[in-house]
Amino acid sequence: MTRPLAALLTPPLSVVTAGVDLFPEALRGQRVEVDTVDWRPPAFGDPAELSAVAADPRRVSANRSAAERILAAGAELVDVRPAGAALGLSRELFLHAGPPIEFAEASGPLRGALIGAALFEELAGDPDEAVAMLASGRIRLEPCHHHRAVGPMAGVTTASMWVSELRDPINGGTAFCSLNEGLGKVLRYGAYSTEVIERLRWMGQVLGPVLAAALARSGPIDIKSVLAQMLQMGDEGHNRNRAGSLMFLRDLAPAIAESGASADQVAEVLRFLGGNEHFFLNYGMPAAKLAMDAARDIAGSSVVVAMARNGTDFGIQTSGTGDAWFTAPALTPDGLFLGAYGPDDANPDIGDSAIMETLGVGGFSMAAAPAIVRFVGGTVPDALATTRRMYDITVTENPAFAIPVLEFRGAPTGIDVLSVARTGILPQINTGMAGRVAGTGQVGAGLVKPPQECFEKALTALSHNATSY
Amino acid sequence: MTRPLAALLTPPLSVVTAGVDLFPEALRGQRVEVDTVDWRPPAFGDPAELSAVAADPRRVSANRSAAERILAAGAELVDVRPAGAALGLSRELFLHAGPPIEFAEASGPLRGALIGAALFEELAGDPDEAVAMLASGRIRLEPCHHHRAVGPMAGVTTASMWVSELRDPINGGTAFCSLNEGLGKVLRYGAYSTEVIERLRWMGQVLGPVLAAALARSGPIDIKSVLAQMLQMGDEGHNRNRAGSLMFLRDLAPAIAESGASADQVAEVLRFLGGNEHFFLNYGMPAAKLAMDAARDIAGSSVVVAMARNGTDFGIQTSGTGDAWFTAPALTPDGLFLGAYGPDDANPDIGDSAIMETLGVGGFSMAAAPAIVRFVGGTVPDALATTRRMYDITVTENPAFAIPVLEFRGAPTGIDVLSVARTGILPQINTGMAGRVAGTGQVGAGLVKPPQECFEKALTALSHNATSY
Repeated sequence: MTRPLAALLTPPLSVVTAGVDLFPEALRGQRVEVDTVDWRPPAFGDPAELSAVAADPRRVSANRSAAERILAAGAELVDVRPAGAALGLSRELFLHAGPPIEFAEASGPLRGALIGAALFEELAGDPDEAVAMLASGRIRLEPCHHHRAVGPMAGVTTASMWVSELRDPINGGTAFCSLNEGLGKVLRYGAYSTEVIERLRWMGQVLGPVLAAALARSGPIDIKSVLAQMLQMGDEGHNRNRAGSLMFLRDLAPAIAESGASADQVAEVLRFLGGNEHFFLNYGMPAAKLAMDAARDIAGSSVVVAMARNGTDFGIQTSGTGDAWFTAPALTPDGLFLGAYGPDDANPDIGDSAIMETLGVGGFSMAAAPAIVRFVGGTVPDALATTRRMYDITVTENPAFAIPVLEFRGAPTGIDVLSVARTGILPQINTGMAGRVAGTGQVGAGLVKPPQECFEKALTALSHNATSY
Repeated sequence: MTRPLAALLTPPLSVVTAGVDLFPEALRGQRVEVDTVDWRPPAFGDPAELSAVAADPRRVSANRSAAERILAAGAELVDVRPAGAALGLSRELFLHAGPPIEFAEASGPLRGALIGAALFEELAGDPDEAVAMLASGRIRLEPCHHHRAVGPMAGVTTASMWVSELRDPINGGTAFCSLNEGLGKVLRYGAYSTEVIERLRWMGQVLGPVLAAALARSGPIDIKSVLAQMLQMGDEGHNRNRAGSLMFLRDLAPAIAESGASADQVAEVLRFLGGNEHFFLNYGMPAAKLAMDAARDIAGSSVVVAMARNGTDFGIQTSGTGDAWFTAPALTPDGLFLGAYGPDDANPDIGDSAIMETLGVGGFSMAAAPAIVRFVGGTVPDALATTRRMYDITVTENPAFAIPVLEFRGAPTGIDVLSVARTGILPQINTGMAGRVAGTGQVGAGLVKPPQECFEKALTALSHNATSY
């Protein structure tokens, strides 16, 4: 019988070093061959937890499964109808963006959107009455994410609002999202003036029904394909949806003309779609939700499947930790402001739209959309460097989302909690900024990151779930 | 009185060197301060002619005027109507792309397009009869450029074809272009089968009248603004017109719905526009023509105002040399082929579409459109390097056509014959490739340059026109 430990010291010896360069350099100075390993101390996280997660024998294959499901996921728009019917919502159940929250904790834009929704649903006659109903719990709040839905910014979705239904023909999922209202004074940014409520009524009375009739005529629209093409056309899919919105218009316009609506209504709908370059965001988001939902509940996977903000807290969920949210106070974006608004007007980060970055587009694919720096701030070299950096914290690259300027490299996809902790690189999100005061609307757009604490908490939970060899 | 020549040798002396590094290096070795001038021998051109053009005292301000007019030029689509009325064409006068040519010298795709046009105009009952009429001169040929018009590929434009009319509200010009048929078996690529002729009839009976009615309702469409936005959306405006075509559809769709056409015809037109991602090329080209026509006839200017190919010859015109064409045999593009086609199937370079590069977009702005390498060949780094190289042969940068990935640097604009000769850098054009045999249609797309001889001839003519101090 050989002595295994002694054999380690039998020539020829080879040397592997990790960390600082001093050791390999000294050895090479003595003509010793050295293999160096690119290793750095982890940036954060309890060492025992990091070890437990890193050593979990299920991790590599679990993350590979997560990646496969995300990459395979498709997304087709199949229906448009009221949220009450689509999601089984009663009139008193209001959905909102981000992790769970009580009305008492809601920030201005979420409060504003909830008030507006109560007025729109005719549950309250004025804002004070709406606040009373919300505060008393007569109107209940639940996250969109708990109902297979996502909503940008405040994300408030109620029974009479029309929503799109998307299906994933590969993994079999379903996801829902409201129709996009445009920019400025809109409910999702917390505005609830008469023009906001009237626009929502028009969307329910004209836009939704015309889109539904057109879609019934055209058949399903391949949303994943539009997302893929957008990245070739200067969009990153979160705060630039210009090409995507145009392609959606192109795909549905003939069927809108044939929908049976009057020429005036056809023109009205085409004008609304053509005038709203963010219309496609509300299709991209449920498409991303479908892909990330497909990666849920894989034991041992450290891949993030949701990042979402309710305006007060930022929350993440991982594949290996079920429905648990890991939350911390949301940070406030830094960026460019509309008109006379400034940093003091901005609310902390809000919305389910960080599902785009969870999928690997949005802030992760800004290299595909250098013009976005004119909307969210930063420089073109920053935008390129950001995408390159995101490859360090993701488990795969999505060939369907090829980034031309990076020689068609796939978007960095599938955030790995372990890689985030090891590198200290936090996911880059770009986002709209809502006014801090209820009723304000949009004040700008900018860049923001999740709080590190979300990842620390997720790491702890993953370590508790970890098995060992 | 000082002796001026002797003063040149009065200390302190300074040394200026040009050309090879040997001299400044030797002097610096002796602690002599040296200013170096980046000078290289001219790449081509007769030295006396180069000197005459370079020394023309009008040149700098003439080229500055040319640049100012090009940058100031606007382009609005104001009307759509038959070419007979718009251009005053008789049925027997056929316009074509490029410099003047006789039918006997025409290459396959131009012959095919001319035959198709004779069938479409019902001047001939079959291809043989068409050839006889063309060969006998009963059907006369003139360049589009001689009629304030441009046409992609064969560029054949006849009385019954509908054309767009564009106006430059700043410089006051007018330009015309046919409506784009789509890709594949189309007249401009030399195909003339029944489907080609029938599509042209539909364009005259449905598309043209509906567009005209819609435009009358919507008012003028700002084509320059669409061009500017395209460059932020992954188009370069010659072989990628995807975003441009979508924006055009968006701008006109509501008015198309309100045009009074039946819902079926509205849907037909929206489907045709949405299905043709090159539709906008035929608006970009006359917009470029307007800008370059504005720079014509400035005495002493060495700026190129037209580059055009008839499938046999490549021709250029310069601002300082009036209506003269400087021609040489066209080269054959190198690129990517459709289906089973290969290099042997490709006709030499053809079309007025090089007006896009003359303006500074197309091949000159490929950095804005890295995805184009999947259509015309080459690599992404090539595309970026090409745009950077074109700054060496142009007189200005167009801030309206900002290239995001180059940190919003303006497109390299205004090709200077003198710079081309001095550097030997020829303009980079990207282009569709027509089948060599009449009737084939498109066989691919690729990259091509003008023959150097065109610039040699232009330089000679500019030198003959040059004045001296």
